[in-house]
Amino acid sequence: MLFNRLVIAGVGLIGGSLGLAARERGLVGEVIGFGRTEANLRVALERGIIDSYTFDPVKAARGADLLLLAVPVEATGATAEKFVPFLPPGCILTDAGSTKEQVVTIMERLLPPILPFVGAHPIAGTEHAGAAAAVTTLFEKRLCILTPTPRTNPAALARVRALWEGVGMRVEEMDIVTHDQVLARVSHLPHMIAFSVMNAMLEARVADVDLLAYAGSAFADLTRVAASPVEMWRDICLSNRDALLTALSEFENAVAQMKTYVANGDTKALEAAINGARRERQRLTKMREQA
Amino acid sequence: MLFNRLVIAGVGLIGGSLGLAARERGLVGEVIGFGRTEANLRVALERGIIDSYTFDPVKAARGADLLLLAVPVEATGATAEKFVPFLPPGCILTDAGSTKEQVVTIMERLLPPILPFVGAHPIAGTEHAGAAAAVTTLFEKRLCILTPTPRTNPAALARVRALWEGVGMRVEEMDIVTHDQVLARVSHLPHMIAFSVMNAMLEARVADVDLLAYAGSAFADLTRVAASPVEMWRDICLSNRDALLTALSEFENAVAQMKTYVANGDTKALEAAINGARRERQRLTKMREQA
Repeated sequence: MLFNRLVIAGVGLIGGSLGLAARERGLVGEVIGFGRTEANLRVALERGIIDSYTFDPVKAARGADLLLLAVPVEATGATAEKFVPFLPPGCILTDAGSTKEQVVTIMERLLPPILPFVGAHPIAGTEHAGAAAAVTTLFEKRLCILTPTPRTNPAALARVRALWEGVGMRVEEMDIVTHDQVLARVSHLPHMIAFSVMNAMLEARVADVDLLAYAGSAFADLTRVAASPVEMWRDICLSNRDALLTALSEFENAVAQMKTYVANGDTKALEAAINGARRERQRLTKMREQA
Repeated sequence: MLFNRLVIAGVGLIGGSLGLAARERGLVGEVIGFGRTEANLRVALERGIIDSYTFDPVKAARGADLLLLAVPVEATGATAEKFVPFLPPGCILTDAGSTKEQVVTIMERLLPPILPFVGAHPIAGTEHAGAAAAVTTLFEKRLCILTPTPRTNPAALARVRALWEGVGMRVEEMDIVTHDQVLARVSHLPHMIAFSVMNAMLEARVADVDLLAYAGSAFADLTRVAASPVEMWRDICLSNRDALLTALSEFENAVAQMKTYVANGDTKALEAAINGARRERQRLTKMREQA
């Protein structure tokens, strides 16, 4: 057993799946749920994700040796603050946020040295949300990025690594700035694009046609993540603003280039651009097949 | 049996799947393959997609009552021209192209009244290509759009409709201009976006990181169709230029709006934009579940 008493603040898709998987594999003793919505916490209790739940940070904190903050990133600091005065010395705090620079900086300012923090980003998820969507296999073979800083306690880092490895993840370390720049491009940008496509459809007018009635699998796959939770993605965008804006500009340039080729009827340039994209996408397919 | 002798010019994913499905369901007597690449035609023969193949339009045309032009859209006219002098009067020509205004206009100029043309777009496909990728179930429950004009022969239209319905498609009629404007948004735009994302990744530099190593399912799904055949998509872009440029501009505006909200840290506007996109995407999910 890695932890005796795990408190999960935010028993959603990630928090809930971690609870399920960690209990199933005997990695944790007791699991306490903490959240805002009783209906969701009840689902978590009924599904065996948690042993009990409470809205009282004092009760939740008692005897805790790990507090997982699995809330929208902008709420991470405020949620941690509720617990800090009551957590036993040595209790590790960790998060599961999709952006790291802002969260890690806030947490390191907030926490005393006796409460070590480890920034973590388990890269797993679906467009669904809540304890009802939690699945025990969510993390298997997926990547978890830990973002230690010079202030990170090595023993705490090792224990958090063991937890995510214990539920089946590959674990890698990365600095907070690189993490946010990488994720801006491979995750946050795709979500922005999916949201933008749907918003463009809402604005587009083609005769009296309901465009969505003609959407095939290309459109459906491209926009799948547009159904993702609003609060979570609002917070990711705002907390990773600069990297996301850069990624969006890079993408806008690539779109503008394609547009120019189409507008000019530049057959060769268009062919080369599609071919380059195709080869890079085939490289991704191979990487995923080998993983 | 609907047709005695079907000639498929271009035995790729669409042409090949039609051959398989139509033979399996007894909709056609004999199926002749015509193409550029013998290796592909041999695969088609071995897989039972066609009864025989030839590179000679004279031989292929003999006794044909349906010629399916399943080639990249810009090649449709030139391919038809090879057959026109040799086709028996009454032989129907049809296509399977993803754009219709240009193709239908060219075909109607090219063909004499004794060779009726029916524009068709079976909306089905994957990112894979060639006779090897053909599957008999490709068209089941999918939509086929027929694009008759005032010049279209009603009897030919009815027979082509029966063929696509025969392989399991829902069939709908639409005018060529509306078709191209709708498809620009729900199909051609998603492909342009997928190509552009991959090209943006090729240009992006984040430390020494290989960005694709960190791509999750959101990225993979968003860019799946970037692996689509180059020639086919080059032709679609060029043959639907104006509608595609409009769709790209609409999308660029939607992206620019999101970018402004992020840059300004405009929490409420960002939340509203994500929420609007999410609801529209959830509407699509429901439509697809009901279909």
